[in-house]
Parts: sequence; structure tokens; C-alpha cells
Amino acid sequence: MNDADILRRLHELGQELPPPPVPVASYVPVTQAGSLAFVAGQVAMVEGHLLHAGRLGKQVSVEMGQESAARAALQALSALRNHLGGSLDGLVRVLQLTVFVAAEPEFIEHPRVANGASDMLIEVLGPEGRHARAAVGVASLPLGASVEVTMTAEVSG
Amino acid sequence: MNDADILRRLHELGQELPPPPVPVASYVPVTQAGSLAFVAGQVAMVEGHLLHAGRLGKQVSVEMGQESAARAALQALSALRNHLGGSLDGLVRVLQLTVFVAAEPEFIEHPRVANGASDMLIEVLGPEGRHARAAVGVASLPLGASVEVTMTAEVSG
Amino acid sequence: MNDADILRRLHELGQELPPPPVPVASYVPVTQAGSLAFVAGQVAMVEGHLLHAGRLGKQVSVEMGQESAARAALQALSALRNHLGGSLDGLVRVLQLTVFVAAEPEFIEHPRVANGASDMLIEVLGPEGRHARAAVGVASLPLGASVEVTMTAEVSG
Repeated sequence: MNDADILRRLHELGQELPPPPVPVASYVPVTQAGSLAFVAGQVAMVEGHLLHAGRLGKQVSVEMGQESAARAALQALSALRNHLGGSLDGLVRVLQLTVFVAAEPEFIEHPRVANGASDMLIEVLGPEGRHARAAVGVASLPLGASVEVTMTAEVSG
Repeated sequence: MNDADILRRLHELGQELPPPPVPVASYVPVTQAGSLAFVAGQVAMVEGHLLHAGRLGKQVSVEMGQESAARAALQALSALRNHLGGSLDGLVRVLQLTVFVAAEPEFIEHPRVANGASDMLIEVLGPEGRHARAAVGVASLPLGASVEVTMTAEVSG
Repeated sequence: MNDADILRRLHELGQELPPPPVPVASYVPVTQAGSLAFVAGQVAMVEGHLLHAGRLGKQVSVEMGQESAARAALQALSALRNHLGGSLDGLVRVLQLTVFVAAEPEFIEHPRVANGASDMLIEVLGPEGRHARAAVGVASLPLGASVEVTMTAEVSG
């Protein structure tokens, strides 16, 4: 993919890549084996603070959840870009997302929340941003986050 | 593997491959990098309706959960078959399943529920259907489903 | 990596590799495609009994959760070693952990719990033990376990 095109599309969307995430614990942001890259789970942060803490079906609306999912997806892209030496030229395609949604037992709109991440990736990356996905509702997430996103991607070996 | 053998075994079990799943959101059913295929999370559907909505430990029995898990696993196979051009000849082996079970906090029989998926794959695919697996209990699932299954498989490059 | 070094470091830490896990259900402990190995989800067992059953934020403290996570990570290593013919010489690096923490909705310290697994792997394996990670809080886990760990690793083809 073309790093400059991706940054331009982000700019057109009024978005920008967040700074590459710094793990809050004993792990690394990205690992790679051959052409597969695994990005650590991202919770949406803005200037060092959680975006939209809480649970879907309670304090956090679907729209807020979508915003968190989109931000977490951009953080994953930023982590990947940093891993690839500061450019997304080496990103071949996004393969898989798992979107963990902190949710009440009665909540059923996980796919709409997860679309926040999926739509952002497709808008920014085009067809190579299309991915397989699982969305599930969990009891709680690190720091009280409402959404956590993990990403697996194909990169040039 | 041999597509005709797989269809025959399904028939002997009184089962058939569901139609390839259509994502309810902004993602694709299967992605592939090299010989790895990632199948999007499946919730059990029958003729456009959820099979056994609800939670394990509440409205949904272990047997109903097993049936949902088996159906979701067949949907994953169907998605893979569609991705491989309408045949499972190109399926080398199933590598990994994650079985997300919508469950009450006190529920502990996730492995029995997940066996619904695992046993079906082994019965239908033979030794190449054997996989690594995680089974976990989640707060809620898309549309109110009781079980969601993701699959990673090896396919011929 | 060097199997003897790993066993020595474990010994220095007052730890040892648990016996290779026997699945409690219809699946296998490890599958492999090319240089990727997928380890089935591990819940911490000691001599056939669950270590620290219950939920974080309720009966199980962060320290108990860390101990469970560390034990589950060692079981994953043991499973991998058994898969590799009784030696970890063929382990290239750990790629990814998912740490599922059975947790109350208000619990937020999943990263500290998951560090139990991550720190153990880095202490025992060195830099090649560093991995991408997701930690999430789930409603319940098999048998009532407090932590379940899945691992993906790179192995020599």
C-alpha cells in the first residue's frame, strides 16, 4: 500500500494517525513471523486518557462505541506503521480483527459498534482494508475501556 | 481434503452445509495470506433466523449450545468452501477454533458446548479436522446469539 | 532457542514445566501450519486441580490471577515442547497471547493479571519471549477457572 495515500485519505476524513501506542504492560505492540504481523490489543486513548470508558448498553452509546472502535483501529495501524519503519508501504492487507465490546448481558448491537473499526479501515485503506472479523461482548476491559481491538495483518516479508 | 467425501459424510450425519454466510456488517467472510485462511466469527443461523438465542446457564441448555456451536462450525466450513471456489479440496486442515459462549458468571461447561463444534468438524473432516481450541464465556454476542465460532485453517496456497 | 537454558532458567526461578496438558475435550493441544504453532487455551491446573477458581474482583485477587496466568503460560510452553518432540530448541519466538480473565464488570486491572503470563515468558525465554497481547475480562471460563491463556508461536518449519 502507499503510505502517502493513506495519510491523505485520513486527512480528508478529518482524522490522523494517533501516536504509536506504548504498551501499558509487559508486552510489545507488534510481532511478526514471515509475512504475518500481530498487533497487540488496543483500547482507544486520546492524549493519554481513555476515550469513552464504560459499557455498551449502559453509559456508552453505540455511537460512542463506534468512535472508540475507530480510534483503536487507527492505533493498531499506527503501531503497525511504527513496526514497519515509519511507513505503511509494507502493509499488504488487513486479515482479521477481533473487536471486544464491554457490554451488558442484554446488549446485541456488537456488529454496529465493530463497524466503527471496520468502516474506518476500509475508508482509509481501500479494498486491502477488508478483513474477517469477530465481535463479542465481554464483561470488562483494561482500564475500564468500552472497546478493545486486535488486528492481524499481512505485511511484505 | 476431498470435497465429495466431506459432503457425503455430512449427508450420512443427516447434516448439510448451510449456505455461505453473508456478513451482517462491514467485513468479509474469509481472508487469506499464503496458506492461512481466517474465517469471520459465525453465529448459528437457520433460514435467516438465529438458532437458540440467549445465554448458557439461563435460557439455553448445554445441548442447545452444542447444536449452535455445530451449526456455526458448519457455516465456517461453508464460508471457507465458498472462498476456495466452491470446493473444500483446497482445505488442508483446521488449525484453531475460538468458541465464544454467551454465559452466566456461574456457568462452567464451556468445553461441552464447544465440543458441539469440535466433534462436528472431526466427524466430517476426519483427522484434518482436529484443531487447537479456546472456549470462553462472554457477556453477550451479536444479535443475542448463544455461541460464536471463529476458525483459522490451513489451505493449499 | 535452547531447551537446556530454558529449563535452567525455570529452575533458577523455582519453577518447572508442568506436564503437557491433556485436553479436557475434543481437540488437540497444538496445531501447526508452516512455522506457525497454535496452542489451545490453557487454564491453570496443579496436580489435576484448578488453581484459583473464581473471578477477579470477587474471590480471586490480582496476585492469584497473576499466578494462574503464569502457570497457564508455562502449560502452553509445555504443550509446545511436547509438540516439538520434547524440546524447545525448535521454538523461534512467542508471537501472541490472549489472556481471558474471568472478571466482574467493574474490574479494570486485566493488564496486571496478564503480566503474570507475560513476565514469566520473558524471564524464561528472554527477548524471544516478548509477544503481542490482548487481555480481556470475560463472564466465565471452563471449569470455573479465573484465567485462560492462548498462545501463538513461531517454530522452526
